[in-house]
Amino acid sequence: MTKSDQLLAIEQIAQKCGIDNEYLIPHGKYVAKVDLSIIEANKHKPAGKLVLVTAITPTPLGEGKTVNTIGLSEGLNYIGKKAIACIRQPSLGPVFGVKGGAAGGGLAEVLPMETLNLHLTGDIHAITAAHDLASAALDSRLYHEERLGEDFTAQTGLKRLNIDKNRIIWKRVMDHNDRALRHITVGVGGGLNGVERSDGFEITAASELMAILALANDLHDMRKRIGRVILAYNTDGNIITAEDLEVAGAMTVLLKNAINPNLMQTVENTPVLIHAGPFANIAHGNSSVIADRVALPLADYVVTEAGFGSDMGMEKFFNIKYRQSGITPSCVVLVATVRSLKSNSGKYNIKPGQPIPKEISESNVELLKIGAANLGWHIQNAKSYGMPVIVAINRFPHDSDEELAFLQQYALQQGAFACEVSEVFMKGGLGAQALSQHVVKACEQASQVKLPYQDQDKLADKIQLMAKKYGANKANLSAQAQKDIADIEQLKLDHLPLCMAKTPMSISADPNLKNVPTNFDIDISHLAVSAGAGFIRVYAGNIMTMPGLGTNPSYRHIDIDDNGNIVGLS
Amino acid sequence: MTKSDQLLAIEQIAQKCGIDNEYLIPHGKYVAKVDLSIIEANKHKPAGKLVLVTAITPTPLGEGKTVNTIGLSEGLNYIGKKAIACIRQPSLGPVFGVKGGAAGGGLAEVLPMETLNLHLTGDIHAITAAHDLASAALDSRLYHEERLGEDFTAQTGLKRLNIDKNRIIWKRVMDHNDRALRHITVGVGGGLNGVERSDGFEITAASELMAILALANDLHDMRKRIGRVILAYNTDGNIITAEDLEVAGAMTVLLKNAINPNLMQTVENTPVLIHAGPFANIAHGNSSVIADRVALPLADYVVTEAGFGSDMGMEKFFNIKYRQSGITPSCVVLVATVRSLKSNSGKYNIKPGQPIPKEISESNVELLKIGAANLGWHIQNAKSYGMPVIVAINRFPHDSDEELAFLQQYALQQGAFACEVSEVFMKGGLGAQALSQHVVKACEQASQVKLPYQDQDKLADKIQLMAKKYGANKANLSAQAQKDIADIEQLKLDHLPLCMAKTPMSISADPNLKNVPTNFDIDISHLAVSAGAGFIRVYAGNIMTMPGLGTNPSYRHIDIDDNGNIVGLS
Repeated sequence: MTKSDQLLAIEQIAQKCGIDNEYLIPHGKYVAKVDLSIIEANKHKPAGKLVLVTAITPTPLGEGKTVNTIGLSEGLNYIGKKAIACIRQPSLGPVFGVKGGAAGGGLAEVLPMETLNLHLTGDIHAITAAHDLASAALDSRLYHEERLGEDFTAQTGLKRLNIDKNRIIWKRVMDHNDRALRHITVGVGGGLNGVERSDGFEITAASELMAILALANDLHDMRKRIGRVILAYNTDGNIITAEDLEVAGAMTVLLKNAINPNLMQTVENTPVLIHAGPFANIAHGNSSVIADRVALPLADYVVTEAGFGSDMGMEKFFNIKYRQSGITPSCVVLVATVRSLKSNSGKYNIKPGQPIPKEISESNVELLKIGAANLGWHIQNAKSYGMPVIVAINRFPHDSDEELAFLQQYALQQGAFACEVSEVFMKGGLGAQALSQHVVKACEQASQVKLPYQDQDKLADKIQLMAKKYGANKANLSAQAQKDIADIEQLKLDHLPLCMAKTPMSISADPNLKNVPTNFDIDISHLAVSAGAGFIRVYAGNIMTMPGLGTNPSYRHIDIDDNGNIVGLS
Repeated sequence: MTKSDQLLAIEQIAQKCGIDNEYLIPHGKYVAKVDLSIIEANKHKPAGKLVLVTAITPTPLGEGKTVNTIGLSEGLNYIGKKAIACIRQPSLGPVFGVKGGAAGGGLAEVLPMETLNLHLTGDIHAITAAHDLASAALDSRLYHEERLGEDFTAQTGLKRLNIDKNRIIWKRVMDHNDRALRHITVGVGGGLNGVERSDGFEITAASELMAILALANDLHDMRKRIGRVILAYNTDGNIITAEDLEVAGAMTVLLKNAINPNLMQTVENTPVLIHAGPFANIAHGNSSVIADRVALPLADYVVTEAGFGSDMGMEKFFNIKYRQSGITPSCVVLVATVRSLKSNSGKYNIKPGQPIPKEISESNVELLKIGAANLGWHIQNAKSYGMPVIVAINRFPHDSDEELAFLQQYALQQGAFACEVSEVFMKGGLGAQALSQHVVKACEQASQVKLPYQDQDKLADKIQLMAKKYGANKANLSAQAQKDIADIEQLKLDHLPLCMAKTPMSISADPNLKNVPTNFDIDISHLAVSAGAGFIRVYAGNIMTMPGLGTNPSYRHIDIDDNGNIVGLS
């Protein structure tokens, strides 16, 4: 029997969690979109508890955050609670690159994995289409205004936008790892083929529209947010929005289906809502507000995952998603593995695809003690937001009892509510039985979100405060960053929360500083506003928004077999 | 009551045409993909008759070919026959540009029009993704081979492809009208951001993968065709295929759902299969072989539409689609309007969006007599392929009885089987009642396809023959074209049929030569092989494969209203 033999028809999954057929928009037998009108219908129902899954600082070894998010939702069902998982949609780029898909695995996997990892219901393609429509519209307007010159308004009846071709900030997007598109020249040769200028592509997950899809409260809110998106500056230095270009309506129309979250199931038939997949550096790294709003009245527990470590996606959940939506977690689950904590010690330089040093794989409590400091930092970071924190040790075969005992003791010392081993990959919900019981208890505790700064705090102060939360002595603002702050204040957008755009590979902004860095500064190069998504991107280091393909990319091994089944996808 | 109130659930439409639920992959309430395994299940059922709808030389006034294809399928149902329409999927580019959608209109429209004109089930997005994956893979390989130099094979275990960066023929694609992407430079600056080179985007409908989707017989055939696609040349001047790059399997996997045709319905609940949308100049301009194979055993009549005039899509149906698939029309329906024949007279210079001269709109038999020659040519062209030809006059309110009587007499003189007025826009199937009866009679006639050339004919002879079919004195082959012919013979691909890439706006290759041009040559600039689709593109003039947006593009008027409904889409 394969895992897929256990799948239930999506209507049965919907029924399990109380979604009537009238709200279901089927996409094949095992996937359905849920019409967001269900939110209004369920608005008087009591909301379940939200469990936010985060992790220690990521390592090339992988921590298993997605698998534990899915496994925990199975575990809560296993102990008799109604649970739904809310996760992000994987991007095609990594699927054909090196990382593979993001369906979880083993007995804690979303099925059909192929559907999740490939097009799903086309939401990411819809974002690509909406984003690039704005680009085409912008370049077309630039072309026609230049071509018609002073006659533009007389001939078209339209007001000139006077787009500054050197200050177009809306790049194009594509859902592939394609380094050759990072820096391009468009309109080469000019004339009938547009206006020549520098441009570039980002991967679609980096589109502001992805963040908007994840943060919008409903269709009308999405429409307004898209209207506010800043595309470019005009030659007077003023912003040009999607509303100014009269393209925001058409962009919204392209996202009208994408706004409905996607219902799937795990190996154990636990319902999963998949919706949106924003980056956790230049965006806020969490699945959608709408999916949470759909799920919370339907379940006792909703388990959701934030991108990267607690310094990234979890921080952004509170400072961005919570501030905007009011959606409040009841506890934080912090995923770690013994191996990745040893790796976090910084004693070894581990690279993806290369052999793992034996000190990492064999029992070594001394090494673990060093790297455990990283776990301690993340426990305290999560607690600083007012949350009870449960550490989930994603168990690997080589982990020794001594190592696990040490971690449990250490986590409790650091203030964790509980620390429990998780074996969801091998055992599914059964493997998260004890973990789930801790989660239930933690959620019974009264908790209140504590935010590190207030909307009305000075922008520069917010940045200093966040730098200090990462352990930095201070943030150094470049001249450009200081100018950007003044511009954002001028635009009266300085009340927006920060989206710290830094490496996820260190608590600091320097990927080479491992474990718990101390005695460092954070250099802020520049700021930029995602006016539609509603946050200010604060850049501490270069962020890669268009990955490349390696020398042995996954696509080489993906094919159909003689029976037409997909092989090589993982 | 709106048109949409009359919609049946897609399961009911499927039932009407004998598609069991087991073959249905629903995408919402009104669209379903039909699993192509139904072809095998129905292989012993007798096939219905195929009716191929074409038109006179297109004019800016529009002839109403799609509306008549849909209306004729309704008409055949109206007179008690089982009929299915098979049409192409509209591209997003024109939807947001100037042309609008391609759902038909009035009482001869595919519903829901918004679904058809926007993403439908994501087939075009899947083609974009598969196509651009090959581009990303190609540029990545170029980069890694250049970066690692002589060490490439030692470090990667892969054979060098030695891609000639100046002879990469696989451009990127996007489903938008975006002139700034026609000519671009990628990898600007080189280094970690790829290899700098000239490139460009085409609209997705121009992708060879679109033609492959439309011509593939099944999934395995599609896989093989994708493997044969020529992406580039190496530095020795030999071809590099998608198989060589090891990306053909992954491309196929991205198209695994797209290969299933999409079932929808007309205003009158006639089943419609929508599948693929290749251009009718650089590709063959017809909906898919698979859709026809699904539809033929399910219906008495399958009505399908070929792109542009009979010199373009119809010619390519016979020379490309029929040759490859054996799918055989029983008659040809030639759509014309009184106005567009007057326009074809060449006496007026009519431009889209500008006022129509009153001579065109008022009764004017003398003017019509001149332009009717164009109808005569298309009748004889269709007859030359062995088909009975029925002329459908798409009636407009201003058409006089005298004009219609003249056309009927003229068409019969020219050898048409029948000539009948069609009023499907206003009346639906009722408006094609008489036309449908003629179609039934024509299909009862014995007919046999006559092809103008044989596969084994010399490539240069095939070109001369096609030029003469257009009325040219001869084809002039440039030096490049002669070299291309030699190369194609060298590749042993000269047995493939021609795909004449010329303007649709004239029977000749010069859009300025109206009506029935005589005493002209056709200049062939170059040839190129679509080895996966299986045809040789013969270029007679520049073909625009990336449109641009005008000064008053449709997107400006598309939005959601207060109730969240789409407005401004047509």
